[in-house]
Amino acid sequence: MAAAARLAARARPGSAPNPGVAALLVRGGTIIARGWTQAGGRPHAEAIVFDNLDGTAKGAALYVTLEPCAHTSERGPACADIITAARPARVVIGQHDPDPRTAGQGIARLKRAGIETTLLDDPASARSLAGYMSVRRFGRPYVTLKLAMSLDGCIALADRSSQWITGEDARAHVHAERARNDAILVGGGTWRDDKPRLDVRLPGLEHRSPRRVLLSRRVPPDNVTVINRPNQVSTLDGVQYLYVEGGGETAASFLRDDLIDELHIYRAPIIIGDGLRGIGALGLNDLAAAHGRWTLAQSRRLGSDEFTAYLRTRN
Amino acid sequence: MAAAARLAARARPGSAPNPGVAALLVRGGTIIARGWTQAGGRPHAEAIVFDNLDGTAKGAALYVTLEPCAHTSERGPACADIITAARPARVVIGQHDPDPRTAGQGIARLKRAGIETTLLDDPASARSLAGYMSVRRFGRPYVTLKLAMSLDGCIALADRSSQWITGEDARAHVHAERARNDAILVGGGTWRDDKPRLDVRLPGLEHRSPRRVLLSRRVPPDNVTVINRPNQVSTLDGVQYLYVEGGGETAASFLRDDLIDELHIYRAPIIIGDGLRGIGALGLNDLAAAHGRWTLAQSRRLGSDEFTAYLRTRN
Repeated sequence: MAAAARLAARARPGSAPNPGVAALLVRGGTIIARGWTQAGGRPHAEAIVFDNLDGTAKGAALYVTLEPCAHTSERGPACADIITAARPARVVIGQHDPDPRTAGQGIARLKRAGIETTLLDDPASARSLAGYMSVRRFGRPYVTLKLAMSLDGCIALADRSSQWITGEDARAHVHAERARNDAILVGGGTWRDDKPRLDVRLPGLEHRSPRRVLLSRRVPPDNVTVINRPNQVSTLDGVQYLYVEGGGETAASFLRDDLIDELHIYRAPIIIGDGLRGIGALGLNDLAAAHGRWTLAQSRRLGSDEFTAYLRTRN
Repeated sequence: MAAAARLAARARPGSAPNPGVAALLVRGGTIIARGWTQAGGRPHAEAIVFDNLDGTAKGAALYVTLEPCAHTSERGPACADIITAARPARVVIGQHDPDPRTAGQGIARLKRAGIETTLLDDPASARSLAGYMSVRRFGRPYVTLKLAMSLDGCIALADRSSQWITGEDARAHVHAERARNDAILVGGGTWRDDKPRLDVRLPGLEHRSPRRVLLSRRVPPDNVTVINRPNQVSTLDGVQYLYVEGGGETAASFLRDDLIDELHIYRAPIIIGDGLRGIGALGLNDLAAAHGRWTLAQSRRLGSDEFTAYLRTRN
């Protein structure tokens, strides 16, 4: 299941409006076929895995990160039917699909066909489906806030100069993260002052440059979507993963509305002192209220910088 | 040599004015005796290691973090003579002693006595002698700046409330660090506003509470030393290791004078926004000038917080 959840990274971004699912067919401890949701959301992972299978699924176990769909579409048959036809010995499912057209009906159909079916509540599968689940549950994309800061939390000198806080490895990591998101958002101030290109400058990934979104009250430039308030991210069609790159006021406005699901902090080994803060006013008046909201998920070195990811604790 | 350098931690603090040295006697891959500088600076590590030896040093190698002294004092004989009398097969030395009374003469005396003697330039030994070396080289203690901050670099809310930013594990770590220093310093503002006890509240280590120093222009309270400017740390007799605990203006004044050798950052997984900054104005006007000064030395989790140590890069 862990391997399937990792494989699902390949379905990101671009599966919207469908979930980015991955499937593995395993026999005797060996992976005999793999599949993941293709760009645009079709074909589904299950269709791909049986297409990729050389021979029969007899005696094999299918690991799939999300419950197979139970609805037929113009664009393809229901995955539950595809699986039933291929007849693997077992199906192991990472997460239940909240889509009302499936929602347990995929599992019921497999069981009715006599296929042994197990539903896990697998955290790695849930993580790999974060964008889809966020749209289903909250009606908005999964939002990652990126901050490239000094040790003391500054994102620029007082005169706004910010080239460069972090090193090349960290900046390449940011470009790879951009390529994993459907859209990037910055505030109007950052847009005007820094004139960021907000594209992916990694060899071979230039075409993955995401859609650009501004948080601003002004008329947007060409090829840029504008929203006036953070909670309008719910209006961004086809965006399951949104990457917020600042500045400090934009970060604060998203945090005030509790719209940040993941924090990515790139920390350079420099001290700035009285520079520009990475996060503006939050109106916090009780330290206890600040606790319990973030959990350290990952920490690694990137050149001389440190990358740390935190997840919003939600129950 | 690495084991000897680790053992030298036991000589810290309290060896001043002498270096905190450790020595190991090894035969056939087994440590047969250990020693380190005792409180007050005497006996030296070499005297202790041969005292602790059960039998003869014949055929053994002596690993010692610093060049054995070549001068006789009222408080004991020269270590080079103690070693010569004990006649180990070899002596391996971590670092050269810049004390003019030794400065190569310890090594020369061992060689003259026909003992095979090797001088390394061992970084771990140098680290373990940082306080002594700083006093010798710069005429001032080795200074560690501690910061307990939110993810965005705040040490308190705007109303100065700071209880608590970090959790219990981080706070226990701070108390253990206090016990490793000869003195703690805070600024006058922190002293007045926070009324910190600045003691070691760890079972069995209460007696290790270090001397308290204030950076202030006012008359100090009882049992507290006062200095007016950061560079007056050079006047603190018997202090090889100084621990600076804030606040932001004190941190900035030490950083402006380039008096910080090590940074200890305790980072809690909370965001504060417009709180009190951990570091005040530095007058930095060029980002490039901020780079290359700090190297990440250690990173670990302490409960839900993260501890990171950086060393000042000096050539």
